[in-house]
Amino acid sequence: LLTGETTNPLVYAKFSASAKACNLNERKPHILFYGHYDVMPAPQQGWNSEPFDLVSRNGYLYGRGVTNDKGPIIVVACAAAELRRRRALGADVSFLIEGEEECGSTGFDEAQDSIGHVDVILFSNSTWITEYEPCITYGLHGAVHCSLQISKSLPDLHSSIEGGVIREPMLDMIKFLGTLIDADNKVQMPAFYDDVCTQSEEEMQLLNRLFIITNRASHCLARRRRESAMTVHNLDISEPKNATVIPSRVSAQVSIRIVPDQCTEKISDDLQSFLRSRFEKLGLPNKLDVHIDKKADWWLGELNDTWFKSLEKAIYGEWGIMPLRIREGGSIPSVPFLEKGFGCHALHLPMGQSSDQAHLPNERISIANLHRGKAVVERLFSAPVMPK
Amino acid sequence: LLTGETTNPLVYAKFSASAKACNLNERKPHILFYGHYDVMPAPQQGWNSEPFDLVSRNGYLYGRGVTNDKGPIIVVACAAAELRRRRALGADVSFLIEGEEECGSTGFDEAQDSIGHVDVILFSNSTWITEYEPCITYGLHGAVHCSLQISKSLPDLHSSIEGGVIREPMLDMIKFLGTLIDADNKVQMPAFYDDVCTQSEEEMQLLNRLFIITNRASHCLARRRRESAMTVHNLDISEPKNATVIPSRVSAQVSIRIVPDQCTEKISDDLQSFLRSRFEKLGLPNKLDVHIDKKADWWLGELNDTWFKSLEKAIYGEWGIMPLRIREGGSIPSVPFLEKGFGCHALHLPMGQSSDQAHLPNERISIANLHRGKAVVERLFSAPVMPK
Repeated sequence: LLTGETTNPLVYAKFSASAKACNLNERKPHILFYGHYDVMPAPQQGWNSEPFDLVSRNGYLYGRGVTNDKGPIIVVACAAAELRRRRALGADVSFLIEGEEECGSTGFDEAQDSIGHVDVILFSNSTWITEYEPCITYGLHGAVHCSLQISKSLPDLHSSIEGGVIREPMLDMIKFLGTLIDADNKVQMPAFYDDVCTQSEEEMQLLNRLFIITNRASHCLARRRRESAMTVHNLDISEPKNATVIPSRVSAQVSIRIVPDQCTEKISDDLQSFLRSRFEKLGLPNKLDVHIDKKADWWLGELNDTWFKSLEKAIYGEWGIMPLRIREGGSIPSVPFLEKGFGCHALHLPMGQSSDQAHLPNERISIANLHRGKAVVERLFSAPVMPK
Repeated sequence: LLTGETTNPLVYAKFSASAKACNLNERKPHILFYGHYDVMPAPQQGWNSEPFDLVSRNGYLYGRGVTNDKGPIIVVACAAAELRRRRALGADVSFLIEGEEECGSTGFDEAQDSIGHVDVILFSNSTWITEYEPCITYGLHGAVHCSLQISKSLPDLHSSIEGGVIREPMLDMIKFLGTLIDADNKVQMPAFYDDVCTQSEEEMQLLNRLFIITNRASHCLARRRRESAMTVHNLDISEPKNATVIPSRVSAQVSIRIVPDQCTEKISDDLQSFLRSRFEKLGLPNKLDVHIDKKADWWLGELNDTWFKSLEKAIYGEWGIMPLRIREGGSIPSVPFLEKGFGCHALHLPMGQSSDQAHLPNERISIANLHRGKAVVERLFSAPVMPK
């Protein structure tokens, strides 16, 4: 399905439930699997093999996209196809594989109409919290990505001539960014943490269990799963970038991770006014531009949902242990978006390990995990438990 | 003359004084002209014509190196050659044109032996302070260039997973650089300004004259000519530079401009200890590396020298006005170095205008200035005044 003139198409496919596996007097459940085939860029540096040649080494597949998100897509597609061949597919399974996830997920609206009613949406687009314990992800961060630029009206200048005379945009950027986050990583935006929901008893217990398993301090785990944070990703200057030049333009990329119950729109608006007012206070001749590049809502799954329990049961069936319930992973704007669109819950089954290096060099996924992930999906697809 | 296996050679040439122009009972003066044929890189961005195609437009020559330093070299060479042809060269003129100025000027030592005794060294490697008043540069900044790197032992991480948990090197770099220079551009190194010499009455008068001509506030002029300053040139991060990654390594390039009577070695040592102690105070798990890339001493000419007055006279003869005496321009390590080596004074005759854009895109030089610069050099070379 085309999504636009400059965007990658959606891949849509449907595997119908097998008469043998379903009691056709009952309504067949409809599971929608979402994945994305687009990947982050992969500069050569840091890779031990070609990023776009699939390489197998020591039980792992290496290559850009193997864990995020191509490996899991293949696994789910193979599971559905095999069940269909064996006439054991207990649900209609639709595939919606997009090509724009890494830059904002556009073009879903039309697809929705052709898919019709859906009972549950399955994702597999993040990793475990450890190396050896199967997990279910039931929460994802939201995010606001923002670009800043500080520029002066003058062009680039020779620092040995004009240094110390003018107020340099780089110095402003440094001072400015330095006021956004304190030494304890706390974001300095007023009221920033006001809407972060308090920790429930159930969450506390989950955290304690994770603490024992991961051996990571529980406040670190809490930060990873339920606290908002800000990162300055990079800083760039105008050409020619010589070490004798005062750059006239300095830009920075900043992101905020959002957690329940923060409102993405409010954080985005607050961030813009916060940045502008902070900069104004510096009272400088230089100019600040702020641009919001990307927004994604957070997502929180439903632990008491029948589908959730059905997935948990499938994992238990395959692994012999109950999966860890985790809340982490990158922001995936399509999860809350599709949940709203189809009016049903989403499930998130990660297949990769914490060492998979999504977005990084030497991205990989364990071949054993792919096989067992497929077995879990087969269990879920062959005997889905419809909620009453 | 070769300078090393990986460095560009020196060009050495000598034009002997004409018997006609010299009274050969007297010792002939020997003038050494220094120039450099290497240039700064020239990325395409910002240029209106090819950086390495010489283009003439509206009375200017455009191209990388036209003002710094190829235009002036050609002018002086043509002046010497013409005088020689007309048997009017009143001094032996040696040319020493190097190819390593933009990265530290190496390989002079051997050349010095073959050149022998020198009476004065002429440079033409900076620009006027304005567009329309001929100048003599009698002072240059020194410089210390330094690279910093802050790195963590962990690799790059996905910011949506680890954001807020670890102390990010970028945040450290921002906080750290923010403490080096205050809002008034003052360098925060202890005792940094202690050795800056106080302003003499003569300097004050020069400044006031420049203030009237340039219409720039005299404190700005003072800053440009006689005050030390620090610039943060750029900041770079480890690959893959995605806006979803916490970079594990952040590097920065910082320079300090040095003025009389600051000691380059002392500033360089102080800078390293200052950076290390500031960073230590932050008490962080991340690691700081400091590397001094380049050092250059400041230079201050001798206004009462007979050669200086001879150059002033030559400019007056050509332009009909006395040149402005200015102290500014990039650091040129070879000026103080050659002065010491040959035990004589240096003269610095800039030919370009303040708008010449050395090191920047659209570098240019005025053709009229080149012609009149040549005429000034011809006057100086045909009737040099030997000091008694």
